[in-house]
Amino acid sequence: MGWIKVVGIGPGDINDMTLKACNSLKECDIVVGYTTYINLIKPLIKDKEIISSGMRREVDRCKKAVELALQGKNVCVVSSGDAGIYGMAGLMYEVVHKENIDLKIEVIPGVTALNAAAAILGAPVMQDFAVISLSDHLISWQVIEKKLELSSQADFVIVLYNPKSRERPENIIKAQQIVMKYKREDIPVGIVKNASREGQQLIITTLKEMANYEIDMRTIVIIGNESTFVEKGKMITPRGYIL
Amino acid sequence: MGWIKVVGIGPGDINDMTLKACNSLKECDIVVGYTTYINLIKPLIKDKEIISSGMRREVDRCKKAVELALQGKNVCVVSSGDAGIYGMAGLMYEVVHKENIDLKIEVIPGVTALNAAAAILGAPVMQDFAVISLSDHLISWQVIEKKLELSSQADFVIVLYNPKSRERPENIIKAQQIVMKYKREDIPVGIVKNASREGQQLIITTLKEMANYEIDMRTIVIIGNESTFVEKGKMITPRGYIL
Ligand SMILES: C[S@@+](CC[C@H](N)C(=O)[O-])C[C@H]1O[C@@H](n2cnc3c(N)ncnc32)[C@H](O)[C@@H]1O
Ligand SMILES: C[S@@+](CC[C@H](N)C(=O)[O-])C[C@H]1O[C@@H](n2cnc3c(N)ncnc32)[C@H](O)[C@@H]1O
Repeated sequence: MGWIKVVGIGPGDINDMTLKACNSLKECDIVVGYTTYINLIKPLIKDKEIISSGMRREVDRCKKAVELALQGKNVCVVSSGDAGIYGMAGLMYEVVHKENIDLKIEVIPGVTALNAAAAILGAPVMQDFAVISLSDHLISWQVIEKKLELSSQADFVIVLYNPKSRERPENIIKAQQIVMKYKREDIPVGIVKNASREGQQLIITTLKEMANYEIDMRTIVIIGNESTFVEKGKMITPRGYIL
Repeated sequence: MGWIKVVGIGPGDINDMTLKACNSLKECDIVVGYTTYINLIKPLIKDKEIISSGMRREVDRCKKAVELALQGKNVCVVSSGDAGIYGMAGLMYEVVHKENIDLKIEVIPGVTALNAAAAILGAPVMQDFAVISLSDHLISWQVIEKKLELSSQADFVIVLYNPKSRERPENIIKAQQIVMKYKREDIPVGIVKNASREGQQLIITTLKEMANYEIDMRTIVIIGNESTFVEKGKMITPRGYIL
């Protein structure tokens, strides 16, 4: 029987991958993944068998990986960023456990979008933070709303994954309205599109103005807390050291 | 004038470093860091000048890095995990801005402890999560308490950094008591010590029992949400796919 590694390939640039992730790709027979992510790592997997498929085919990809591992293949299932943050790690375990197969699964951690975006913006996440996905594809909007309410009330730095898609363009506006009930309108907001990928774009604005900018599926949004400031083009949430 | 890179070296194992982090260390003249972290990357920096110092010397290390860069040296300031999560990134910017020096600073993102620990535990952080440091060295305990209250109420997965130190052994118990007001006693809790380092230890227990285990400065604690379960020794928070 082969093994399955669920590999976080980082935000996009191959240089943001870990050595372990690179080595896992080298050592496997087959790479399974979402087409966009496969394309990001193409140079590393030229000599590998590749099985790629489109969005929302996650369950199929996991089942395919199991099938191949049972045939004796060593399989890397790739996930962007870190596979354990809105990625493929959980689903992979669920599929294997459900089919009650005794297969070795390992998760190889990676740099998640939030760390890549934060590094580009400056240092916006140096204090306690809440991470919320605005996708209501798998979770009800009420549950998301409650998380937005309470994390704003507690003045967490708030990081939004999946801020917008074609099917739910209004979620980001709704989120902004909720956060504005508790946070000052002029709190800094960082918007990073394609962090560490081709087409990287970076905007530093305010809570009030954030909706004026393009926010899409390849974007991550970081909303500061009470102490976050912008200086010389960098967004910084000070840790509290006395200088 | 030289440059400063604030480099996230990942949780400990050199193989969890990114290629960019490795290359930054290779390209610099001097490495500045906390002694423990310098030791983790010793094999990579044999031929470099090294300036290491103990805990709570963070401000001094940043000032030293500035001094060296002004002398024309290229300096890597290393931080464990990701430098932007309770690390050195923010402080480095603050020191440079305060002294009003026009120095190039770059943050090189890394795998933060939470991703490393999650990968070891299974997939405990697949839904929205809140990250809280229990250190009240730079922040008042009331502020931390409020974050614990509201994030528990919203049923976030909760990740605790800096869960315990010699000076404040009781914070972790206080945190547990607060979380228990809102979350079920039998919700799974993962405790990882020395993730991806020598001496790695892993415990999966419950909210009620967590305080019976050793939790120290080199430990990270992940408290599940309503849907988190343990199966075949893995802690999993399902993303919600229908299998
Ligand atoms: C399904 S989630 C996958 C997250 C991924 N597992 C990670 O750890 O980064 C997709 C969302 O992550 C964010 N994201 C992922 N990569 C990104 C990048 N390079 N730049 C900006 N946002 C990114 C966006 O918010 C996007 O909608
Ligand atoms: C000052 S914070 C630094 C965090 C670091 N910048 C990061 O991104 O992981 C130190 C805390 O991080 C956690 N931590 C860091 N490395 C760890 C590891 N290898 N295993 C477990 N916990 C770790 C512990 O909670 C520790 O008290």
